[in-house]
Amino acid sequence: MVIVMEQGAEPGQIEAVIEAVQKEGFTPFVNPGVERKVIAVLGVIDSVKVALVDRFSNLPGVERVQLISEAYKLSSRSYHPEDTLIEVGGVRIGGPEVVIIAGPCSVESRSQILEAAEAVKAAGAKMLRGGAFKPRTSPYSFQGLGEPGLKLLAEAREATGLPVVTEVLDPHDISLVVKYADVLQVGARNMQNYALLQRLGKTSKPVLLKRGPGCRLREMLQAAEYIMIGGNHRIILCERGITTFEDATRNTTDINAIPVLKHWSHLPVILDPSHSTGHVRYVSAIACAGVAAGADGLIVEVHPNPAEALSDGVQSLTPERFQQMMQVVKRVSWAVGREVAAK
Amino acid sequence: MVIVMEQGAEPGQIEAVIEAVQKEGFTPFVNPGVERKVIAVLGVIDSVKVALVDRFSNLPGVERVQLISEAYKLSSRSYHPEDTLIEVGGVRIGGPEVVIIAGPCSVESRSQILEAAEAVKAAGAKMLRGGAFKPRTSPYSFQGLGEPGLKLLAEAREATGLPVVTEVLDPHDISLVVKYADVLQVGARNMQNYALLQRLGKTSKPVLLKRGPGCRLREMLQAAEYIMIGGNHRIILCERGITTFEDATRNTTDINAIPVLKHWSHLPVILDPSHSTGHVRYVSAIACAGVAAGADGLIVEVHPNPAEALSDGVQSLTPERFQQMMQVVKRVSWAVGREVAAK
Amino acid sequence: MVIVMEQGAEPGQIEAVIEAVQKEGFTPFVNPGVERKVIAVLGVIDSVKVALVDRFSNLPGVERVQLISEAYKLSSRSYHPEDTLIEVGGVRIGGPEVVIIAGPCSVESRSQILEAAEAVKAAGAKMLRGGAFKPRTSPYSFQGLGEPGLKLLAEAREATGLPVVTEVLDPHDISLVVKYADVLQVGARNMQNYALLQRLGKTSKPVLLKRGPGCRLREMLQAAEYIMIGGNHRIILCERGITTFEDATRNTTDINAIPVLKHWSHLPVILDPSHSTGHVRYVSAIACAGVAAGADGLIVEVHPNPAEALSDGVQSLTPERFQQMMQVVKRVSWAVGREVAAK
Amino acid sequence: MVIVMEQGAEPGQIEAVIEAVQKEGFTPFVNPGVERKVIAVLGVIDSVKVALVDRFSNLPGVERVQLISEAYKLSSRSYHPEDTLIEVGGVRIGGPEVVIIAGPCSVESRSQILEAAEAVKAAGAKMLRGGAFKPRTSPYSFQGLGEPGLKLLAEAREATGLPVVTEVLDPHDISLVVKYADVLQVGARNMQNYALLQRLGKTSKPVLLKRGPGCRLREMLQAAEYIMIGGNHRIILCERGITTFEDATRNTTDINAIPVLKHWSHLPVILDPSHSTGHVRYVSAIACAGVAAGADGLIVEVHPNPAEALSDGVQSLTPERFQQMMQVVKRVSWAVGREVAAK
Repeated sequence: MVIVMEQGAEPGQIEAVIEAVQKEGFTPFVNPGVERKVIAVLGVIDSVKVALVDRFSNLPGVERVQLISEAYKLSSRSYHPEDTLIEVGGVRIGGPEVVIIAGPCSVESRSQILEAAEAVKAAGAKMLRGGAFKPRTSPYSFQGLGEPGLKLLAEAREATGLPVVTEVLDPHDISLVVKYADVLQVGARNMQNYALLQRLGKTSKPVLLKRGPGCRLREMLQAAEYIMIGGNHRIILCERGITTFEDATRNTTDINAIPVLKHWSHLPVILDPSHSTGHVRYVSAIACAGVAAGADGLIVEVHPNPAEALSDGVQSLTPERFQQMMQVVKRVSWAVGREVAAK
Repeated sequence: MVIVMEQGAEPGQIEAVIEAVQKEGFTPFVNPGVERKVIAVLGVIDSVKVALVDRFSNLPGVERVQLISEAYKLSSRSYHPEDTLIEVGGVRIGGPEVVIIAGPCSVESRSQILEAAEAVKAAGAKMLRGGAFKPRTSPYSFQGLGEPGLKLLAEAREATGLPVVTEVLDPHDISLVVKYADVLQVGARNMQNYALLQRLGKTSKPVLLKRGPGCRLREMLQAAEYIMIGGNHRIILCERGITTFEDATRNTTDINAIPVLKHWSHLPVILDPSHSTGHVRYVSAIACAGVAAGADGLIVEVHPNPAEALSDGVQSLTPERFQQMMQVVKRVSWAVGREVAAK
Repeated sequence: MVIVMEQGAEPGQIEAVIEAVQKEGFTPFVNPGVERKVIAVLGVIDSVKVALVDRFSNLPGVERVQLISEAYKLSSRSYHPEDTLIEVGGVRIGGPEVVIIAGPCSVESRSQILEAAEAVKAAGAKMLRGGAFKPRTSPYSFQGLGEPGLKLLAEAREATGLPVVTEVLDPHDISLVVKYADVLQVGARNMQNYALLQRLGKTSKPVLLKRGPGCRLREMLQAAEYIMIGGNHRIILCERGITTFEDATRNTTDINAIPVLKHWSHLPVILDPSHSTGHVRYVSAIACAGVAAGADGLIVEVHPNPAEALSDGVQSLTPERFQQMMQVVKRVSWAVGREVAAK
Repeated sequence: MVIVMEQGAEPGQIEAVIEAVQKEGFTPFVNPGVERKVIAVLGVIDSVKVALVDRFSNLPGVERVQLISEAYKLSSRSYHPEDTLIEVGGVRIGGPEVVIIAGPCSVESRSQILEAAEAVKAAGAKMLRGGAFKPRTSPYSFQGLGEPGLKLLAEAREATGLPVVTEVLDPHDISLVVKYADVLQVGARNMQNYALLQRLGKTSKPVLLKRGPGCRLREMLQAAEYIMIGGNHRIILCERGITTFEDATRNTTDINAIPVLKHWSHLPVILDPSHSTGHVRYVSAIACAGVAAGADGLIVEVHPNPAEALSDGVQSLTPERFQQMMQVVKRVSWAVGREVAAK
């Protein structure tokens, strides 16, 4: 941590900063800058110092406080240099295999989810996605089936053997969702819902953490930290597009996020090309891009009949297009030294 | 709602769209475009049609579906042309008076909150803010005092007569917070926490809804709609800065949001210049800008001793600077035909 | 300037950085960080060090290089603490007076520009704006009258006494535009057109530098630096809205830019509420906000008959609405201790 | 084009709009909306109608004007359905081959550019890049060698047979640069420098048009339109990253831009992973992602000795790392049905 003093900071102000740093138990180190003084704070890693940024920032004469190292710890690669491997029902995410998760946006009916599950399994998907609790921008849109939807997901798992990923919206639904799901998804709009994150830290199921569309990558790792601090270290990070000025696509796929997160963190990183593009026309190209950039997996929306879907139909692949996408994804995986496991 | 067909859409595809529109109970109206056909969907307002966007978007041959009017209803000015006036403990927001809400970011101690409450009242504030449950980016930062903090807020209200605004983070804390608070705040990171919004729709206390830093204004009104649909129509909209590429300030104050929200909606609109700038140096100038742009109020962070604040100290005014700010804010209010009530 | 080493940087790498710093004539200063070493580079101001960021960034073992002070010099307040006052034809920008510049987007005809000039003067404007060379997003849009337009502007100046601000697009048109204009405008899309900026540094006329819609404030001051380095220090900075995800308005007015630029720089700062909102409905509110936030002036689009305007009609005020806006702007100016001079 | 009337628009206002549309030679078509009237404007493609948006937008009672089809024409796929193939010195961009362009950011010396050219050719690059005129954010940074740099590029072409891509900054340097270059590059900061674009429309050399970091894709095609309207249809579109709130990387690679531009336009599309990431650590992953997403080529910064580079060293690959990158890029090209030609 580095404390930059204002250009005209008085000696007394510098003294006061030095004392404040010492009072917190750290060693101050004054750099004799020609223009302005810079005080380095030595002693511990910056994730712990985060709480001190505000503390030091408002001392008189301080221009600003900059963290030099990461604002997170448990999720950082410096804390845990090896890749974390997460195993769910026999599927391993974060290893050599590129894991494909697929299924409809929402569970709509028994036949729909069973048909979808069989179709994605046949094409090579290793996990099933499907929403029972749906966060929708408009309250007038379909909100999901709730617990009956969870039961249908469990039934689809029985039928296909595919582990199930589903979203939990309300901290108090966790105990319910945990009964049916294999992986608990935190939706993009809840990435900084700390009440939810803290309770997920106390569960034993892996968490698929989607990036908030307006959140920086370091905020995403800080959100992961909220869960990890509670004891649950099995987190899958998911890039799903960010909000920018470009309106040609529903979101902007931040493809850089994949190698950056892999560099900063030991956690597995996957891409959701359905939400990050918002249109079926672009899903396959961006799915391939994600694998080429180093993603450990993909989560893709597939619906037996997109034209009848109650949500996200315009970005859902038919089973046929998903099958075609899988062919290319497999070849790209091989090209970058990974693999998509045969069934 | 307008359905734009692809350039080469076949007659059969256009027929299918017409049938789908009729099946949903609306009247289709085909525009004989030279380049591409456009089908208008007549019948009801677009907030109800939102659920149909996905439905129509994925019919074969459809390029895209555009809403022509608002994607929200209860919060729109076309639904409720007059300004909504919200009364809380004798204070009226949304009328001729510019209402100033002030107080510390977090409740830290009895003396701190009492001192802050007295100071902001003395300077002309009409409501007291203070957080007992704090959503912080890092889990290593101070998270608030919880219920003891709420009790201290209630004590400060007793002492000063100022109604209290405080944040609720977890849907299941609502019943607790409602006991102490006069206005329930939804923090920026929870603007799209629909589990929280839906339960707030069932409470009788006004809600101060902060804009998510990555959310569009129409998404903000859709979030308000989630609360209003439950029966609670007393919502105060709050601009608090958005996330952009500009890093000179913590957030970018979207000052345009004020006249836009006043044009689109009948709900009161206030500005939080503390979060929207992130630095005490800029708070007063932006507070004045907010009032000049038509804000119905301000919510400002004031701390008796910012250098000792456990959160947001760098953007908290001292009581002296707040007092100075209030002098200019009063003059600007007058200049735009509003007023800041004398005590 | 601070050089942050990678966590596992070897002693030899640190040595090499120290040598490189010394070779460039600066004094290195190693901070004994626990996690990672940080080397401060002492000696001169950072604007000169900018050229060294790349140089040092790619030495082996370097994580990143951070500038501690500004990346610009001549435009900074630390270089020139007092406000710069720019005088043009008897009008002084940057002093106590809030200067209003108004006129049509484009010069369209003799009667149009003369009528506009008389109208804006009557309402209290002190300078006339009008484009003869128009940068338009589409090549199919009206591109301006060229030199005949410049002549009409000069004629309007004759008639009203108002100095003229007009845009120059091509470096090789400068000698032409200089003959007719009092202030040379650099349009937003040319803010980083360095060929143009460098040649403007050699002219004697003041430059109105509009912010690029995708440019940070520090990049704007670096653009100003390009002009100032050539010898022309008379620059007026103009905020005109930035490109963000919010699409409710044409651009997002970065109102924070006003106090930030006033804090960082000694140059006058004005606001263009016409472009920063894009709609006549919001211009007056945002004009007032700009003055309340500390702007030294406004530049506003006014057209005798907006419904017939060849460009920007939707954001152009009629003379009547401009007159009404001026009444409020005057009161707000007074409220913040400034004034709009009587004619 | 669709004209949306305000909710309370009066019959007389609607009549006036109908007349204005007819006066411009188009056929109006009124949709009997329940909430508000919508008038479709039939007759010609929207690129021509662009000039009418302003015209119609400011008629009384008009809420807004929306274009239904593209705001560009010559660059659109509907105008020219087949892919455009651009041939330069025996290299064909836009066909089955993925073309790699590589070389240093700036030409610094004879030995540097010759060494770089040989190295990139040896690794499989088909064109040489190198800047002689450099647009730099700071005027204190290295600005390029000018004409001597162009001569060195020509010498490198002689030595290797690689065609040369180099930037032109000033419209009046075009005649000079054309003498040495095979492809003229428009830098990102000049994407909307219309004086430059218009003159490039009159040259016979292909243009590599870089996307402005704050520009939407449709604005990029409108910039291309400026060149094409002059007669030069040989344009290569280049995504090089956009400016967003994410600061983990220098820019955000908009990978969606690749399939979107290929869908909208017939022009070849390439990616610059060096600028779009800003760090050598991420270049190879994003280069592969670009090819996987469908790019027709890559432009990559390679420097014989990045640690001594005068610009962009931190994002420049060594010849060794470039060679490694090329191995993976070749395999990914194959995986998506393309190829990187053997030397």
